[in-house]
Amino acid sequence: MAFSEFRPLDEKVLIEYIKATPSLSSKLNNNFDNLTIKEVGDGNLNFVFIVVGSTGSFVIKQALPYIRCIGESWPMTKERAYFEALALREHGGLSPDHVPEVYHFDRTMSLIGMRYLEPPHIILRKGLIAGIEYPLLADHMSDYIARTLFFTSLLYRNTTDHKRAVAEFCGNVELCRLTEQVVFSDPYKISQYNHWTSPYLDSDAEAIREDNALKLEVAELKSLFCERAQALIHGDLHTGSVMVTHDSTQVIDPEFAFYGPMGFDIGAFLGNLILAFFAQDGHADEQNDRKAYKDWILRTIENTWNLFDRKFVALWDTNKDSGDAYLPAIYNNPGLLQLVQKKFIKDLLHDSLGFGAAKMIRRIVGVAHVEDFESIADASKRAGCERRALEIAKLLLKERRKFQGIAEVILAIQQVQ
Amino acid sequence: MAFSEFRPLDEKVLIEYIKATPSLSSKLNNNFDNLTIKEVGDGNLNFVFIVVGSTGSFVIKQALPYIRCIGESWPMTKERAYFEALALREHGGLSPDHVPEVYHFDRTMSLIGMRYLEPPHIILRKGLIAGIEYPLLADHMSDYIARTLFFTSLLYRNTTDHKRAVAEFCGNVELCRLTEQVVFSDPYKISQYNHWTSPYLDSDAEAIREDNALKLEVAELKSLFCERAQALIHGDLHTGSVMVTHDSTQVIDPEFAFYGPMGFDIGAFLGNLILAFFAQDGHADEQNDRKAYKDWILRTIENTWNLFDRKFVALWDTNKDSGDAYLPAIYNNPGLLQLVQKKFIKDLLHDSLGFGAAKMIRRIVGVAHVEDFESIADASKRAGCERRALEIAKLLLKERRKFQGIAEVILAIQQVQ
Repeated sequence: MAFSEFRPLDEKVLIEYIKATPSLSSKLNNNFDNLTIKEVGDGNLNFVFIVVGSTGSFVIKQALPYIRCIGESWPMTKERAYFEALALREHGGLSPDHVPEVYHFDRTMSLIGMRYLEPPHIILRKGLIAGIEYPLLADHMSDYIARTLFFTSLLYRNTTDHKRAVAEFCGNVELCRLTEQVVFSDPYKISQYNHWTSPYLDSDAEAIREDNALKLEVAELKSLFCERAQALIHGDLHTGSVMVTHDSTQVIDPEFAFYGPMGFDIGAFLGNLILAFFAQDGHADEQNDRKAYKDWILRTIENTWNLFDRKFVALWDTNKDSGDAYLPAIYNNPGLLQLVQKKFIKDLLHDSLGFGAAKMIRRIVGVAHVEDFESIADASKRAGCERRALEIAKLLLKERRKFQGIAEVILAIQQVQ
Repeated sequence: MAFSEFRPLDEKVLIEYIKATPSLSSKLNNNFDNLTIKEVGDGNLNFVFIVVGSTGSFVIKQALPYIRCIGESWPMTKERAYFEALALREHGGLSPDHVPEVYHFDRTMSLIGMRYLEPPHIILRKGLIAGIEYPLLADHMSDYIARTLFFTSLLYRNTTDHKRAVAEFCGNVELCRLTEQVVFSDPYKISQYNHWTSPYLDSDAEAIREDNALKLEVAELKSLFCERAQALIHGDLHTGSVMVTHDSTQVIDPEFAFYGPMGFDIGAFLGNLILAFFAQDGHADEQNDRKAYKDWILRTIENTWNLFDRKFVALWDTNKDSGDAYLPAIYNNPGLLQLVQKKFIKDLLHDSLGFGAAKMIRRIVGVAHVEDFESIADASKRAGCERRALEIAKLLLKERRKFQGIAEVILAIQQVQ
């Protein structure tokens, strides 16, 4: 059964659909007995069904023509599923250990069938709130980030392939516009969607709306976001887009994917780790002061960046004859290549700090908040955590170019405590 | 008569074509007596026919599937005519006084029919070599540049329209690759196409190939060129792409048009004026030391930038409620808007200096030179002029961020004399 037009899934429709779709039914060995289907979309945008049979499983994700957490009053193209499937396949090819496999895509139905990340996989953000250490997280995430960004950039690609891919992902403009609004605009103006821990942060939110130096820097980052097609970025790489176990790290939900600045992905991940860091004081209790865990988060931030740096440069060294950006006939001398790489990485650190900080700010005074803070029941305590996060975010955003390396960033975070 | 497939024009085919094409034949009032047709393509890439009848005239430009000045050994998409026609129409709509009207476009034939810029219009570069002052040049060019760049950027457009246009012009990738090669690559490496005034400049050309600091900066500019879709730029705005009379300034040949960094256009124009400035000593003789003319060129550089600055900011002020880049709800306070504009213009000056300098360097040690220097018969004298131009170009490229305004650039140019 192929639907000739879009219809939202429910359990009954979904079973029919699976039976009629070989790429899905084969995953269950065509055995539909004891099938369990559970809708678990706890994100902001989509339906997510977990389908488990006795001999196989998968996840069905369907985009709706509006933003789920707001409702039909905020329409949003369901074509985002197309770009999500494209990005999952592209990034999956580059980093298969850290991206779930796509089994099926149906553009009419805006529907992706993909690997079910079975328990004990949980959303990283929930693990961070629970205070769980993931010893391989920095290693895995630096691997995913380095590979997906390097291989989709002009460091590896030629201009022809790059521009073709850039043009295709220009079609994902509605999701880009959503990011523009919620990250680069709403927090800096009065908006019906903004909220914060009131009244504690009222004056902090107002200070952000009146901070000219901050707005000047946000404008520069927004321009980078809108204009710079550097690599195929995930576009929404917060700790809610990562599923983890002790041994496994899987990046999901790249529906915001497009050719944008590399620093936007790196910043999203590091910025959300910093949010998790500042939320810890709200989760501390007499049994666990979370001090050791905070140190682990800081080490993870530092390791993620440093491992990314090392792996990215290693990919560059290995592939230095590829890509149109730095032709070997010009950049073949070792001293120069090193100079170029150092400059690239330093500029990227500054971009990442800027974007990461912007993502932090929007999670505290914008429309969509993070569970790290929201789960702190005591509003006064929560506001204290959020205020410290805001303080470092403003510093990182405005002064990002002064940081020579990640160690200085860690020091700055420690000083805000 | 519509051709079902591409064929290169000759005079006979062209007459048939005109007769069968109402949008062209009507321009001659369907009067084909006393028609004169002259092929004048002195550029590097195309056929250009001037068609003059007793009651009308136009120009026919046809792109060939190779680069004309090199020959069939350097293939080049004739689709460039499509992008040229698109850009002529888009820029013509924005700056109708300074862009020739398009009467006809035939994609199959890669053929544009457009207004004939009748004598005394000449190529600006030839006017500069002849030492002719154009009192309205700075005013006209600043107008063209400010309007075409402003209205095709996110300062005026919304993201949806912008990304749609960016995607379309990604198709002009072959011409972008040509620029990448001749501007950002070839001059910095050994290339069969490179040449220079040898032996005088042998060591200068070698010094460029071995200048790590220069190559570091060129890489940054190339990345901007390849990745930053800031506005619909002309893409080849040198003084050979401008036709002038005392009262008229017309910008032609935007076949390299695509969404790129604004500074690439501004830099191309200013950089070529600087080349003209340094060429003057080679054209001086006992009758005319060209000193006054050199002052006029410097004033024109200064005025072009300052008028551009003023007009661009005025367009921004007038249209500050338009465009997705700086939303009024955030940037509505006058102090902040001014701060943002000052930063934008300063960054743009630095980009322009960098790109302008890169364009200067490539014209002295790369594949395609400029008549300003080539027409200096005495090789030693020519090399002297070229060396001074190279010196300032390297300075502008490496130290561009230190210049606070155009007046400092003029001073630096004067000091190199």
